[in-house]
Amino acid sequence: MNIRAISIYIGYLLLVEGAFMFAALGVAAIYQERASLVAFLMTIGVLLFIGLLLTRLRRGPGRVYAREGFVTVALGWVLISFFGGLPFYISGYIPNLLDAWFESVSGFTTTGASILKDVEALSQSMLYWRSFTHWLGGMGVLVFMLAVVPLSKGSGETFHLLRAESPGPSVDKLAPTLRNSAQILYAIYIVLTIIQVLLLVLGGMPFFDSLLNTFATAGTGGFAIKNASIAAYPSPYLQLVIAVFMALFGVNFTVYHLILAGQGRAALKNGEVRLYIGIMLFSTLLIALNILPQYGSFSKAALLSFFQVSSIMTTTGFATADFNLWPQFSRYLLVVLMIFGACAGSTGGGAKQVRLLILLKSLKARMQMMLRPRAVNPVRMDGKQVKEDMISGVYAFMAAYAMICIVSFLLLSFDNKSMETTLSALAACFNNIGPGLDLVGPAGNYSVFSPLSKFVLSIDMLLGRLEIFPLLLLFSPSVWRRRA
Amino acid sequence: MNIRAISIYIGYLLLVEGAFMFAALGVAAIYQERASLVAFLMTIGVLLFIGLLLTRLRRGPGRVYAREGFVTVALGWVLISFFGGLPFYISGYIPNLLDAWFESVSGFTTTGASILKDVEALSQSMLYWRSFTHWLGGMGVLVFMLAVVPLSKGSGETFHLLRAESPGPSVDKLAPTLRNSAQILYAIYIVLTIIQVLLLVLGGMPFFDSLLNTFATAGTGGFAIKNASIAAYPSPYLQLVIAVFMALFGVNFTVYHLILAGQGRAALKNGEVRLYIGIMLFSTLLIALNILPQYGSFSKAALLSFFQVSSIMTTTGFATADFNLWPQFSRYLLVVLMIFGACAGSTGGGAKQVRLLILLKSLKARMQMMLRPRAVNPVRMDGKQVKEDMISGVYAFMAAYAMICIVSFLLLSFDNKSMETTLSALAACFNNIGPGLDLVGPAGNYSVFSPLSKFVLSIDMLLGRLEIFPLLLLFSPSVWRRRA
Repeated sequence: MNIRAISIYIGYLLLVEGAFMFAALGVAAIYQERASLVAFLMTIGVLLFIGLLLTRLRRGPGRVYAREGFVTVALGWVLISFFGGLPFYISGYIPNLLDAWFESVSGFTTTGASILKDVEALSQSMLYWRSFTHWLGGMGVLVFMLAVVPLSKGSGETFHLLRAESPGPSVDKLAPTLRNSAQILYAIYIVLTIIQVLLLVLGGMPFFDSLLNTFATAGTGGFAIKNASIAAYPSPYLQLVIAVFMALFGVNFTVYHLILAGQGRAALKNGEVRLYIGIMLFSTLLIALNILPQYGSFSKAALLSFFQVSSIMTTTGFATADFNLWPQFSRYLLVVLMIFGACAGSTGGGAKQVRLLILLKSLKARMQMMLRPRAVNPVRMDGKQVKEDMISGVYAFMAAYAMICIVSFLLLSFDNKSMETTLSALAACFNNIGPGLDLVGPAGNYSVFSPLSKFVLSIDMLLGRLEIFPLLLLFSPSVWRRRA
Repeated sequence: MNIRAISIYIGYLLLVEGAFMFAALGVAAIYQERASLVAFLMTIGVLLFIGLLLTRLRRGPGRVYAREGFVTVALGWVLISFFGGLPFYISGYIPNLLDAWFESVSGFTTTGASILKDVEALSQSMLYWRSFTHWLGGMGVLVFMLAVVPLSKGSGETFHLLRAESPGPSVDKLAPTLRNSAQILYAIYIVLTIIQVLLLVLGGMPFFDSLLNTFATAGTGGFAIKNASIAAYPSPYLQLVIAVFMALFGVNFTVYHLILAGQGRAALKNGEVRLYIGIMLFSTLLIALNILPQYGSFSKAALLSFFQVSSIMTTTGFATADFNLWPQFSRYLLVVLMIFGACAGSTGGGAKQVRLLILLKSLKARMQMMLRPRAVNPVRMDGKQVKEDMISGVYAFMAAYAMICIVSFLLLSFDNKSMETTLSALAACFNNIGPGLDLVGPAGNYSVFSPLSKFVLSIDMLLGRLEIFPLLLLFSPSVWRRRA
């Protein structure tokens, strides 16, 4: 285990976090928020101190392999979440350290589950930082670091880091070097973010609200800055802009790169994006019809339905209606949509649509094989044959996914909440959505849980965002064993 | 598609069913139950008429391949369930045809879910038939037919039939021919059944009750003949006998064959059986500790816990306590235990412990591979390497399992029941257990559901018993396409 290399990478991660916190400090200064100012200053001091200390280490000759990649990402995320929660704690807005960590993990993992009963009581700068963690966590902190800090020793090393943080079963190379790929990803991300802010400001939303709501949309996070979430902005135009941008940020960014490169036709043929849009439209229709009696007008039901389906599928978690009051079919369909979530290579969470696509295709091939054992039935996607290794990777991921659900479910059961609260909280945290049903519905929050449950749900959020294995491997003895 | 061969096999199946119904007719005659007598007579008449008609067909030259095996098993099970439900309907004990079919499917698939509010209102002969369907369905109707009717055209053909009905990812050959294997299985089954009846009678249970409760234990069915299920027999001895025999019938029958063949040591090393016993004991301990405050004495809590864990894991579904009133942890753990159920090659249902074992082992191997991509990590079980094809078969099964759960869950949601009722009913039917939680807990029943839900749950029971694919393939166009 190359502990020095890991420490250096983590040092840079903490420096990046400290640098971004200066913006929150600025907001605190503008709004003259004394307690927040002190809290950010202290946290920045700690981050810079530890970051500079770690990055001063000598690298040594050792290389970085897969396991170092996993460990860096897992430990890095635990640490940035911890330090990201410190301002809430120091300022006194969240007086409990576990709660502060929960809120910060929820931010960075773009979950948006909150233990706050009254979010409007936070200072402007705390709201800014809370929403900004979504934006940074959405595309990835390591991806950002790799894009700006020229420190990698060859692309193999960068690959191990990028792969461990990137959502989806494979890492798409957008450019000859991974550093360029990371830069392209962030460029697209920033441009889309700016467009959304402009569209919201044009619709009459205050600039501060537009910026923070866009952070939460872009990262598919869902932290609201109003207690009523997006229902606080009754303009159908604003709600539609947010619904559409949530959907856009849930698309594989490779598609945007293809469109920019003039290969729009290839982008349209992407099997995952087609499945994603198909499920989104079909679910929107089903729910709109199901809630129609409750709202009277189809256009109203359709807008509410589209907003909610987009919000859940992209794993954002914003709400314009209390869907907890909808009929069971709509409520349960939303929970089912949580499982596979958005596209791989987007800022969204969940098991990813591409995994669903590969599962369905390989299941079909298997059934063909049962009927004609000697026939060859390769699984094909986007015109290419899917490798056996990719398929078994998807299956292994889903198996690990199921095991974690079972263990978490049993641990959460000690809280004696209803199965609806327990299961929907688990699905909403593990898939990085935020609100669930019953006690954790859009009108509720996560303060109802015991410390054990809050801890379990925090770990589930991290497991979900990092796609299980980096964190799980931390507990595998062979990670810590000496290399033969 | 060799329709003639399929028809002939189904004809024999119906004859077997008709022959077994004579015993129920006898019971009706002994107890002088007029309505039941007429109902059984009429059904036997229909079964023999159709059975003789179909078995008179000329076979023709066509062979039987995998797809004919699947179709025979799927259609055969649908038909014997239908005819098995007719006596309930004709006699007027279950005045609704869908309900009668539900009850019969629940019997043959060894589920034990009932729409009856008062089971003690049934006639003795109806109770006999209802419990006997468990015994026949447990080991398999086709297996029985193959054991007694010398009709197969070579072992390839028999294999296709046996494989489609047998539980678990592979068919164990106990003897050089599959017909002998089927005979050995039934011999072990009958001997164990007789021993249990004797032990119950020795404990003071009336012979009729002993026989029927043993049918339900042996098939891991769980239909009770008392409204209070096994709690109606307060003797700890009787409850312990049933608990132990449930556990025994959930073991892979290959193990008993090994023991009889003097290879007891090999039997003890069976990985699946070890996992099965380990999970059973560990869960018994956890639940006993969890319910201890409710019952005061550890021995009482341990007996109740062992009975319930054995009942759920073997997918029997008997109850000695209303576990719906236990704390959430125990209730939810029981639901989790439903998923993987008993061992392959037993009379129990669920996804089978061996699939869990293969899943865990392949997940471990996958994680090793992530750390050392070039190392070779074969999955080994019982001293042998598990073939890649077997592993992907298990994964495909679990994927199909999850898809069916999702679709069923959404269809059931139209009933607007609580998530606990909906999900536990689904788990209890799909895994062939019987009772679930909330409205379908041990004190409740399935009459609360709409016709749509009852139909969905019936199909889930059949999908569970036949391990999904035979029934699923009925809807695949390539089954019905002409062979090239």
